[in-house]
Amino acid sequence: MNKLTVELLLTGNELLCGDVIDSNSAFIAQELATLGLEVTRRVTVKDDLGLLSEEIAAQSKRADILIVNGGLGPTVDDMTAQALSNAAGVPIACHPDAMAHLEDWCERRNYQLNEPNKKQAMLPQGCDIIANAVGSAVGFFLELNGCLIYTSPGVPRELKTMMQDEILPHIRQRKTIENHTDISRFGVFGLGESTIQEMVNDAFPDWPQNIELGYRAAMPNIEIKLTSHDQQAHDIKPLWQQRLVELLGAHVIGFGKTTMAQALVNALNESAKQVTFAESCTGGLMASQLTTVAGSSAVFEAGFVTYSNAIKTSILDVQESTLHDHGAVSKPVVEQMLNGALNKSGADYGVAVSGIAGPGGGTQEKPVGLVWIAWGSSNKMQTAALYIPLGRQYFQQYVAAVGLDLIKREVLGETQAPVYLEARKAKLN
Amino acid sequence: MNKLTVELLLTGNELLCGDVIDSNSAFIAQELATLGLEVTRRVTVKDDLGLLSEEIAAQSKRADILIVNGGLGPTVDDMTAQALSNAAGVPIACHPDAMAHLEDWCERRNYQLNEPNKKQAMLPQGCDIIANAVGSAVGFFLELNGCLIYTSPGVPRELKTMMQDEILPHIRQRKTIENHTDISRFGVFGLGESTIQEMVNDAFPDWPQNIELGYRAAMPNIEIKLTSHDQQAHDIKPLWQQRLVELLGAHVIGFGKTTMAQALVNALNESAKQVTFAESCTGGLMASQLTTVAGSSAVFEAGFVTYSNAIKTSILDVQESTLHDHGAVSKPVVEQMLNGALNKSGADYGVAVSGIAGPGGGTQEKPVGLVWIAWGSSNKMQTAALYIPLGRQYFQQYVAAVGLDLIKREVLGETQAPVYLEARKAKLN
Repeated sequence: MNKLTVELLLTGNELLCGDVIDSNSAFIAQELATLGLEVTRRVTVKDDLGLLSEEIAAQSKRADILIVNGGLGPTVDDMTAQALSNAAGVPIACHPDAMAHLEDWCERRNYQLNEPNKKQAMLPQGCDIIANAVGSAVGFFLELNGCLIYTSPGVPRELKTMMQDEILPHIRQRKTIENHTDISRFGVFGLGESTIQEMVNDAFPDWPQNIELGYRAAMPNIEIKLTSHDQQAHDIKPLWQQRLVELLGAHVIGFGKTTMAQALVNALNESAKQVTFAESCTGGLMASQLTTVAGSSAVFEAGFVTYSNAIKTSILDVQESTLHDHGAVSKPVVEQMLNGALNKSGADYGVAVSGIAGPGGGTQEKPVGLVWIAWGSSNKMQTAALYIPLGRQYFQQYVAAVGLDLIKREVLGETQAPVYLEARKAKLN
Repeated sequence: MNKLTVELLLTGNELLCGDVIDSNSAFIAQELATLGLEVTRRVTVKDDLGLLSEEIAAQSKRADILIVNGGLGPTVDDMTAQALSNAAGVPIACHPDAMAHLEDWCERRNYQLNEPNKKQAMLPQGCDIIANAVGSAVGFFLELNGCLIYTSPGVPRELKTMMQDEILPHIRQRKTIENHTDISRFGVFGLGESTIQEMVNDAFPDWPQNIELGYRAAMPNIEIKLTSHDQQAHDIKPLWQQRLVELLGAHVIGFGKTTMAQALVNALNESAKQVTFAESCTGGLMASQLTTVAGSSAVFEAGFVTYSNAIKTSILDVQESTLHDHGAVSKPVVEQMLNGALNKSGADYGVAVSGIAGPGGGTQEKPVGLVWIAWGSSNKMQTAALYIPLGRQYFQQYVAAVGLDLIKREVLGETQAPVYLEARKAKLN
């Protein structure tokens, strides 16, 4: 297998000081992945000619393909051309094609070609220019130490056009690309990374070496990614993915980038049912997540954010005596909240939550992190008390995900209980 | 000036393949900048033990301080500890402090400590652990080739706490830092970057050269950053910041990382008033943003997510005839929604929104992106129609921010109208 080594080099002080979050390199990696190419190493350096030249020389010795991004502009801090000249040991000179592009670019915009612009035509001797259809700076290509080096502009829309229209076709032409990489992914909720790893270790001691298993925490979910690099692995992967999905059961949210809210909307749509939410500690988060999904109006009409006791009573008909006897964070209160929400909304299914998000409001008996959840329909209602002592915002995110998950399982008729109902169960006095 | 060389090393296939955009390194750089430290080079490598070990060895020779981020988790693709062991030429061993942290962490969450978790206590011999207040993985510190090496978790909230509470103080203790850089920042809503730049150019042709003015888009807000590098600039900066804040007026959200929701909670707290929300197109987003703020229960009791016409009528007493005559996205409907929410909640102030988030549901007369907003109190109610054709999720985020901003201005008694009420005004037929 002819596996090519690909590296990236990004330049720019703004990328290092934290003012700009680098999204170009993700774009470049995704484009290269379409050719089955994988980036193994990425270096970001400040705008310093010495550092840049040194880095290009080192990377050209290690990699088969190097994409340099940024530093092609007209200002003094743009020094990619000079750095590549230094690394290659060739002089820098005015490139006639680059100058023609600049003149044409200025003419079409009725600009005067100025001195800083002319700098953009000063390129390492012997390089080929790479057309830029949408900006003044051309890219350029040079082979050094057997490495194909491409320079590209930092402006995202210029980079996009140049990658897709020029650089990728050029790589295809120069290298025999065997389109080897195939990635599939799915989301999981309610199992930690280490638990999943252990389940996999136990269930699949024979997990094939050529199917890479990757995990990514995307709070509160885990994304699982299966990567294969050759045809034999591509062929067996669907079977192993299926085994893995069966192992994880209803903890699987869905394939690709499916969110929990999307999965719930899908389940409700398929059964032509509606859902409602009665939210205390999550403050509307379940409703707002559900309604980020386009078309959610078919499955959702009403949500209730009842933050105080008085409002739980006036809006959801929770009895004052129940609040008095048991407190707002209690099983009978969430049951009454759910009943109230189902009655007022006319929805088939509902979730009610009441808990202590913190940082204040906790007691010995009912600490910060305690939440009572009721879910189901007027015929079949279940409740649980969980303990999620993870800070206010994470608590809210986690509880909202639990609420959406529990009702999704109910809609789908899932009979097995999720692991977290036991693992995160609150110890009640 | 004793200028220290600082490098970063990030690990993770997900960072290289384009699945995840790296925001951790920007955060680390910003934190280091508060000590006057500048990152000169950042390397990102895939989860490969050989590459990682080699890179750590090379960076330790070049840098005074190296922050390694990621690869501390329990799964097989987490290999930072092993790589640092290799680079330092020391064995890996169970670290008692790390094991104690893990046991404690699991016990407090009522988890069973499993085999993959135990891997997180296997660290390079002789390292010191760095406490992780919010996650299972401890960081660790080791000195190699005169370079201070800190490893930190990839999960942003764990990284945040560890950087601020542990790593920065440790660096301060170990290195003579001349604290040269001072950064102050504040958030702005409702003005674009170029508009702000133009306002600044017009108002302050004499803006001092030694106070750097930076902008960062943090949708839907803009963060403004004032950076000074010497004492003279530190001294004059508060005055210039004050001038700038006065220029931008009530478009300023607040200092530091103050969110719009926090600013509204502050305003309500100061006047001892309460707010309610009647949400259609934002689906609970205003309520859920407000309730992310600790202590919001003092100023918020009830929110209503009324997604359908029937629910607008049954829950908020919107008249069926009004819905029939004007449609749900109309001035009289949001007025009635607001009245209903104020009556039902007993709150002093309220916001009601009804709009077309899309992608479906638009018409020629009422296109996707149109929203009607009513805000105020039962004595003084205002309405506006805006046009925000920016895609479903951005539309929801922007409309929620507008709602919170408009009512915050009302609570504060701000008399000048925000720029967006005119700039984004819908053209109605």
